[in-house]
Amino acid sequence: MSQLPTNNAYAPGNHVLLDFFGAKHLTDIMYIEKALRKAANACAATILEIKLHSFGEDGGVTGVAILAESHISIHTWPEDDFVALDIFVCGSCDANLAIKPLEKLFQPTRTNIKEVMRGA
Amino acid sequence: MSQLPTNNAYAPGNHVLLDFFGAKHLTDIMYIEKALRKAANACAATILEIKLHSFGEDGGVTGVAILAESHISIHTWPEDDFVALDIFVCGSCDANLAIKPLEKLFQPTRTNIKEVMRGA
Repeated sequence: MSQLPTNNAYAPGNHVLLDFFGAKHLTDIMYIEKALRKAANACAATILEIKLHSFGEDGGVTGVAILAESHISIHTWPEDDFVALDIFVCGSCDANLAIKPLEKLFQPTRTNIKEVMRGA
Repeated sequence: MSQLPTNNAYAPGNHVLLDFFGAKHLTDIMYIEKALRKAANACAATILEIKLHSFGEDGGVTGVAILAESHISIHTWPEDDFVALDIFVCGSCDANLAIKPLEKLFQPTRTNIKEVMRGA
């Protein structure tokens, strides 16, 4: 991918895994699409495409924003007020910058965060 | 999502992050699509859609298989023989079952594996 820094070939980027408990707006596919756009903007990433699937009116939503810098995925379990997100961005982007906007949008009562340096 | 086990609401599944170094076939979008299909089959997951983008004839490929059980993503850096994959599957699927088939397909000389239980 063109964004890989040539001086740091094996540290393409950081990958943040977010688990939100007690979260809101987990069936609303339009809201979720806007959330992915805001998360990508927050870490200055370029969206190539967003693909989302709804499992029905009261069901979860699953999908991904494919980025020039990798991806942001989302999978929601509205029956449990739970959503799993992951943000992987390479180059000069920082996945951590998406955390606060996503918390503001989904309003979890509790968040688990794990960060993994990919290619390190 | 319908696959969430009702008796274990906050352990939706395992998420495996794979870094392959010294890997092959990293510019071949058709090969990569087949690899995602084989990985999904290996963990008995259902593909909803595969979306891949190529960054040109000698460039990387980035994209995702969206699964009924979550996703498999792939991002390749052919200039560094490096590929980052992640496999997140919920319900009775096990993401670890995709590792060996993916290693066979991309033939890395070295693999980093991290596993995270999501929602735990």
